Amino acid sequence: MSQCLSKPKANGCYLFQPSPKTEVDSMPEYKAPLRDIKFVMNELLNSEQHYANLEGAEDATPDMVDAIIQEGAKFCEQVLSPLNQVGDQEGCTWSEDGVKTPTGFKEAYQQYVEGGWPSMTADPNYGGQGLPHSIGLVVSEMVGTSNWSWGMYPGLSHGATNTIEEHGTEEQKQTYLTKLISGEWTGTMCLTEPHCGSDLGTLRTKAEPNADGTYSITGTKIFISAGEHDMAENIVHIVLARLPGAPEGTKGISLFIVPKQLPNEDGSAGERNAVSCGSLEHKMGIHGNATCVMNFDGAKGWLIGPENKGLNCMFTFMNTARIGTAIQGLGAAELGFQGSLAYAKDRLAMRSLSGPKNPDGIADPIIVHPDVRRMLLTQKVVAEGARALIYLAGQQVDVVHSGKTEEERKHADALLGFLTPIAKAFLTEIGYESANLGMQVFGGHGFITEWGMEQNVRDSRIGMIYEGTTGIQALDLLGRKVLMTQGEALKVFTKQVHVFCKENADNEQLKEFIEPLAAINKEWGDLTMKVGMTAMKNREEVGAAAVDYLMYSGYAVFAYLWARMAKVALDKMADGTSEEMFYNAKVQSARFYFKRLLPRTKTHAETMLAGSDSLLDMPEEAFAI
Amino acid sequence: MSQCLSKPKANGCYLFQPSPKTEVDSMPEYKAPLRDIKFVMNELLNSEQHYANLEGAEDATPDMVDAIIQEGAKFCEQVLSPLNQVGDQEGCTWSEDGVKTPTGFKEAYQQYVEGGWPSMTADPNYGGQGLPHSIGLVVSEMVGTSNWSWGMYPGLSHGATNTIEEHGTEEQKQTYLTKLISGEWTGTMCLTEPHCGSDLGTLRTKAEPNADGTYSITGTKIFISAGEHDMAENIVHIVLARLPGAPEGTKGISLFIVPKQLPNEDGSAGERNAVSCGSLEHKMGIHGNATCVMNFDGAKGWLIGPENKGLNCMFTFMNTARIGTAIQGLGAAELGFQGSLAYAKDRLAMRSLSGPKNPDGIADPIIVHPDVRRMLLTQKVVAEGARALIYLAGQQVDVVHSGKTEEERKHADALLGFLTPIAKAFLTEIGYESANLGMQVFGGHGFITEWGMEQNVRDSRIGMIYEGTTGIQALDLLGRKVLMTQGEALKVFTKQVHVFCKENADNEQLKEFIEPLAAINKEWGDLTMKVGMTAMKNREEVGAAAVDYLMYSGYAVFAYLWARMAKVALDKMADGTSEEMFYNAKVQSARFYFKRLLPRTKTHAETMLAGSDSLLDMPEEAFAI
Repeated sequence: MSQCLSKPKANGCYLFQPSPKTEVDSMPEYKAPLRDIKFVMNELLNSEQHYANLEGAEDATPDMVDAIIQEGAKFCEQVLSPLNQVGDQEGCTWSEDGVKTPTGFKEAYQQYVEGGWPSMTADPNYGGQGLPHSIGLVVSEMVGTSNWSWGMYPGLSHGATNTIEEHGTEEQKQTYLTKLISGEWTGTMCLTEPHCGSDLGTLRTKAEPNADGTYSITGTKIFISAGEHDMAENIVHIVLARLPGAPEGTKGISLFIVPKQLPNEDGSAGERNAVSCGSLEHKMGIHGNATCVMNFDGAKGWLIGPENKGLNCMFTFMNTARIGTAIQGLGAAELGFQGSLAYAKDRLAMRSLSGPKNPDGIADPIIVHPDVRRMLLTQKVVAEGARALIYLAGQQVDVVHSGKTEEERKHADALLGFLTPIAKAFLTEIGYESANLGMQVFGGHGFITEWGMEQNVRDSRIGMIYEGTTGIQALDLLGRKVLMTQGEALKVFTKQVHVFCKENADNEQLKEFIEPLAAINKEWGDLTMKVGMTAMKNREEVGAAAVDYLMYSGYAVFAYLWARMAKVALDKMADGTSEEMFYNAKVQSARFYFKRLLPRTKTHAETMLAGSDSLLDMPEEAFAI
Repeated sequence: MSQCLSKPKANGCYLFQPSPKTEVDSMPEYKAPLRDIKFVMNELLNSEQHYANLEGAEDATPDMVDAIIQEGAKFCEQVLSPLNQVGDQEGCTWSEDGVKTPTGFKEAYQQYVEGGWPSMTADPNYGGQGLPHSIGLVVSEMVGTSNWSWGMYPGLSHGATNTIEEHGTEEQKQTYLTKLISGEWTGTMCLTEPHCGSDLGTLRTKAEPNADGTYSITGTKIFISAGEHDMAENIVHIVLARLPGAPEGTKGISLFIVPKQLPNEDGSAGERNAVSCGSLEHKMGIHGNATCVMNFDGAKGWLIGPENKGLNCMFTFMNTARIGTAIQGLGAAELGFQGSLAYAKDRLAMRSLSGPKNPDGIADPIIVHPDVRRMLLTQKVVAEGARALIYLAGQQVDVVHSGKTEEERKHADALLGFLTPIAKAFLTEIGYESANLGMQVFGGHGFITEWGMEQNVRDSRIGMIYEGTTGIQALDLLGRKVLMTQGEALKVFTKQVHVFCKENADNEQLKEFIEPLAAINKEWGDLTMKVGMTAMKNREEVGAAAVDYLMYSGYAVFAYLWARMAKVALDKMADGTSEEMFYNAKVQSARFYFKRLLPRTKTHAETMLAGSDSLLDMPEEAFAI
């Protein structure tokens, strides 16, 4: 399959069938924002240079990358986007025989597999194409924005793929990894149990050794995305469980591979294992994805990685998984923007406050109204800023895996660890806000299902919860990443910002961005010091400050990215360009960001220092109705 | 029926059947927050004195008010609350024969009618009990929090009732008002058309005079809540339409009564009129309420109020309708708080940052975590602050209707006009935020339907849209109410605040509230001046500043109300009380408000002055994908 990708236009491997027309009106249509994707990759983040510096990324030539993105865009626009509302409205259905996914999902997955997409960034020794992870993120963005529920099926496979790639034995890799990489089988991550989510130390699923070296896995897992479905012939579950006599808490958890069907000698899917989907959850959104209760009734499993080190094994790819979830925030903002922009240009209501702009019509298009523009620009600036942040993080993932020097790899790892909780929590929060603004632009029509905006709100709401809630991410950022390193992780980033500000201190055109950026960068460090000081006296202060600290950090990171984007755009215009409108819009978007969104740091700066007393003084019994 | 209310415990008129058990798990159960309702009514707003000062409110004795609220609470807890999830899951169903409401809705409405509830605040000359509107708001709060979708049916009747009470002829009152007040018939407001919502000037529905003095109404109305259903024997539509040759725009709109069934000579519902429900909208939430497309095909209607003055007639009760919608924000916060509080006390996860609080359990209840408390306290403070604001507004409604002097009535009208857009937009915005926090406390379980938290998010999302979006309310506040009166409307309020601050300037215990309140009160005036100055040069500045101005105003109003509530609580504790816990929680809630929520004004203060350039400079074509 990898030969398809290296000759994308040659033999039709990338060709696909547009989805069949369904009864559901497929508003809103997704258009891959290719111009902005290229702006961020090539003009902001200089991907060509970046890929050239990586070990073994020779295939990631500009032409190749461009071809992949073009083909990915077509697949998302023509196959996945039309299935987005179908998935929401049909949902998944459970029966004794298994779970049925919505109309068209299975066929779309078949095309995805035939196109070679599952193998793109995987290990070439097991059928992968070994392309850099950052390219995978660009494709994930388009897949996730056009149809998040569908995208979760291959998305979960990535988790299983990465785990086995990193910790599996050679035999496990030959058996499972090859099938996951080809896409013939899909994967899941089975962590959560009814009584425990983030607090995995309390999990109860048991793994008892069998005589043949395998294990009998018994327990109930909930919220298992893609836990059961009809899209692939087998499902590989990665399950957290406890060995007999394992230490209590997080130090007694081991990882197991538990396939839905046991592999035959020839590698095909054989006899059914004792694992089944007990029921599907009814939920607010992502209806097209099957969220399963999974029952393991003495299912046969194989230990993967060392005994009792299961959580450590999970941590190795947790950054990637969280960046993957951060994409949901980007997608929510992009989809909301695309939908509400079209509506705002089309819908006529009221006259502009400064006089009619559409005098021949019964009213002006609502895009003339300042508050409608505030809502549109917020979504635009969130989507484009999120893209910059995620692609930047993606480059760090690349360097962590394939950087040429130890120093490069360590630096990228520190930066990635710092950016990950920010990207995950901040982007899903402001992405959800953006989805709500996209709906708000529609007025009453936004509440109506057919326009797709309320689905975007419902689907994106989960982003702030799974893969660790905003509160959990905030503790990770402030507690583990910043305070436990005495601020080193923060400095890795603020130093970059400082250098950028210094380099551009004399640039008059950039002054409106550089001055507030430098001020924020300094304040960020000062605030960190202050929070750190109070936290040394009272650890509760970390919990009391964390979410505000994280949100502040998000706006600070965005300030840096928007200032850099403004610089690129101003430089392009100074050099002369036929795309004046595009670059000018970038500068104006940056201006909007600094004037309208960055001031949110004022509130967070104050509330993060408000102390834990106002939260903890009230006795538990006083919380009452 | 009015005799039932005057002897609430005597003859069983108020008794009702608890709803039958249904298959749906009825989480979360609603508990009417009676202690807080009494705190706001009696201790904060001194209702006894207030009612004694009104004309014709002799029946509103403390015992009577108390009995009404107690009985209302039981009805909401035992009848309406169990139907809330049923309504969401079943929704309404359309057929040729009409619209069927969810199981139990019709029976609950029957009990509501038998209990005399529809007549509570209506004109005694037509069967009403003439109780003050503010009491109706308290009942509406409980009804709306326990089951918003159900509450909209009688809620819409109020609109029709008020219109006919105010503008109908004696004959129209005898025919329709009596039936609406008894609850035998329900009402609707038919304003919106497919191409126009807020911009009613462009509406197209026609009213052509018939020889007999009636009119033939033809056109399509959309988003008609409670437009068709099976709960009452007839439905009275109040319809906006244009007479032949009427002036264009808002000055050519007239109001018509269009009953679903034409009244017989004896007052009963007779022949079917040419009005029908074409379809039901599929929507994000409030599934239990029928949102109808209504087709008028030459339906017989009667003019109500003067020709071409339809919009003016609507304005007379728009404040009441908007305060009614503001209740949705209060309800969302209350319901989220009740659900997430129970969960936070029950769910065990992680250990407290300062050491185990539940050492014998596998983990601590999540209410020990500062960020969980931040989310709980936000909801609590929003719900209780919203209650104070709505009841305060309700008292102004009472005075506008029944104040003894012209001066009192004028003052109340100015204050009500000022508070209305704030209550409507600010409370639905922060109510929605609270509903989302209620869901967030549950982690992954929040996304699951059975817990009820995601329904609360979906149901409350519409609050920011209907009855005028947040953007529309903001223009009403800043443009019409504040700037057009040269700030007089603002002064009506800030003067009260100023007096309160002065009176309590020497109170050491209150200092932590009074000082920031006085500062906000001053800044509010200063900001208004600044916005006003820029708006004089460029009207677009009003649109650019309006939403931030409104949100700022909301937080300022809350600061005043929370300072007053803290004072009441501190006074009670100084006097000695057996309810130390309750009053102490009030003071701590006020402290939380001032430390954690009021700082949001910092951001709004800055962004409201950010100017319109960052919104309007970008050419429309530059908004592109």
